[in-house]
Amino acid sequence: MSDNKAVRADRLLMGPGPVNVYPEALEATSRPMMGHLDPLFLQILDETNERLRTVFGTDNRLTFPISGTGSAGMQAAFVNWVRPGDVVVVGVNGVFGGRMCDVAERLGADVVRVDHAWGEPVSARRVLSAHPSPAMIAVVHAETSTGVRSDIEPIGRGKGDALVVMDCVTSVGGIPVDVDAWGVDIAYSGTQKCLGVAPGLSPFTASDRAIGRLLPRPTSWYLDLNLIANYVDGGSTRAYHHTAPINEIRGLHAGLGTILDEGLDAVFERHHTCGAALAEGLGDLGFTPFAAEGYRLPHLVTAYLPDQLNDVSARASLLNDYDIEVGGGLGDVAGRIWRVSAMGDSARIQNVNTLLAALAKVVERHS
Amino acid sequence: MSDNKAVRADRLLMGPGPVNVYPEALEATSRPMMGHLDPLFLQILDETNERLRTVFGTDNRLTFPISGTGSAGMQAAFVNWVRPGDVVVVGVNGVFGGRMCDVAERLGADVVRVDHAWGEPVSARRVLSAHPSPAMIAVVHAETSTGVRSDIEPIGRGKGDALVVMDCVTSVGGIPVDVDAWGVDIAYSGTQKCLGVAPGLSPFTASDRAIGRLLPRPTSWYLDLNLIANYVDGGSTRAYHHTAPINEIRGLHAGLGTILDEGLDAVFERHHTCGAALAEGLGDLGFTPFAAEGYRLPHLVTAYLPDQLNDVSARASLLNDYDIEVGGGLGDVAGRIWRVSAMGDSARIQNVNTLLAALAKVVERHS
Repeated sequence: MSDNKAVRADRLLMGPGPVNVYPEALEATSRPMMGHLDPLFLQILDETNERLRTVFGTDNRLTFPISGTGSAGMQAAFVNWVRPGDVVVVGVNGVFGGRMCDVAERLGADVVRVDHAWGEPVSARRVLSAHPSPAMIAVVHAETSTGVRSDIEPIGRGKGDALVVMDCVTSVGGIPVDVDAWGVDIAYSGTQKCLGVAPGLSPFTASDRAIGRLLPRPTSWYLDLNLIANYVDGGSTRAYHHTAPINEIRGLHAGLGTILDEGLDAVFERHHTCGAALAEGLGDLGFTPFAAEGYRLPHLVTAYLPDQLNDVSARASLLNDYDIEVGGGLGDVAGRIWRVSAMGDSARIQNVNTLLAALAKVVERHS
Repeated sequence: MSDNKAVRADRLLMGPGPVNVYPEALEATSRPMMGHLDPLFLQILDETNERLRTVFGTDNRLTFPISGTGSAGMQAAFVNWVRPGDVVVVGVNGVFGGRMCDVAERLGADVVRVDHAWGEPVSARRVLSAHPSPAMIAVVHAETSTGVRSDIEPIGRGKGDALVVMDCVTSVGGIPVDVDAWGVDIAYSGTQKCLGVAPGLSPFTASDRAIGRLLPRPTSWYLDLNLIANYVDGGSTRAYHHTAPINEIRGLHAGLGTILDEGLDAVFERHHTCGAALAEGLGDLGFTPFAAEGYRLPHLVTAYLPDQLNDVSARASLLNDYDIEVGGGLGDVAGRIWRVSAMGDSARIQNVNTLLAALAKVVERHS
């Protein structure tokens, strides 16, 4: 049976996510259960969707949390639109762009993969010139594996007849996202990053242009937006599709409420300030930046380790001796970079200071 | 913005699910977040999987909660095995058997649908004789739409080379389920019924026989069990697939702990006793049984309404005047039957009495 140590863990989470959850969201998640057709819950769902429109920067009617993690959002973004043989251009500059290719290929897409060096942003010019008439162009706004932000707006402007899919898992709530102004048709996010809510839901939005091209019967019943829309889309009648993850949605509702009460600009500023302090402190400790200058996510710092620091043992020391989690690198840069963030409720200057003080001791001990 | 009424709702949930959640599970869900690769969380995940083996009645190594609701479990049960053209026999005696057909057809299966009257159990003889050599036979153990239990063991015994899929969303934790003894290869459940945990996860199990036939690259990346197994399958190395819904899993871990501390037999007995009291009380109020005698789920009573009772207004009165939720009928029996349950933490005799007392007043007022 689980010992108290596991059940009662109290970590400071400053890796690539999940991060610490706003107390209001934790509290809402632990309230007595409600039914998924209860008018009071539907009111909470409608408000959640409206709050998501604000953080996505969209008026899209179909905006709601998908009942799965960010990767379920990615799956939904492709399975509802991609037919076998469709040309899908994917800008790849890290793990999540690569994952998009995998998801699309499995659906029979003719994937045109536009690879970029990890740490560099996706080039709109290269993506737009990769194929004369793609059905879809997919790009990650904030690559969680590299800490890089790519400009989406030029892709939306030049998309032609294609649908533009944007992964904004690690940007929504941390830096400005403007789905409508950027010409994005389909976007999905995660809850466990800058939104400071538990993992398990994927905020999702689709434009009317995208809705008009929905496959009538996608291979996934669970993620079929035609059916889901009958439940989530705020009309007077709600058709049961699957049982919504009620209390997760209530947690998201509360977390979004906390963010919007603080004010989205103030939240961005808090993420930015904490991230800048983090980047500076890491520099002082001998870390050197990984992501390309000008495209670094303010709230997710990626940096090469100082030579003398061993990735695994240093992270284990932070976790076991200080209850602090940071992230290692993925793929080619595993063992060589760290991913250290200030997101959600973790984005507090005292947390940054706590981490930097602990890390200074770890670095000293390993030197 | 949400008024307090919605956020602070405190309902007694005695419909087909979700139901009231064990306090231990709500508490665990609201603990400070942990990372999905934190060794302390992986310990909780391993223990959760072991507890799920107990309630499933299986030694299957691949036993874990899928990151989605029960319908995601259904999707996973088909998308990982069904190739276009595969013959899939489905026993249908309600909504969820019908849903299985839809899920399988979308994957290109040649579905042999064996329809039964709603309210009757699935006939093993009819299902087994429907096709000489199906790739898969799929049946619902406890039909949530009708309150009927079907015998699965004869199907497992006669399955031949087929894989047997069992939907046990509304049976696990309420009545005996014995995946291994019944010869079931793939089974999925839900958390929001007899397990008394929040909706959002689907406990899932697959036999080694089923694992040996996994599609190498199913059309769904999100539900690809080849990849997910590398994370959940308790080895010394854990490969990140998607971010697990950490706190939901901790809630499930705690809920299962509560159930196993009480003892599975005692929990079954509690569901049975409360359900019997419910059935008797409904009979006294003029309801008449819908499900076939001998196959009625003890904990989910389905019954025709007394003639004078209006479905919609009576349920609205229970909800608005008494904060009690019961379920209406689906499909052909919408408006004519109710689904009233005693499951999870709702399965308490005082809850049954509370409901029956309120319902007596509602019936009186509508007469």
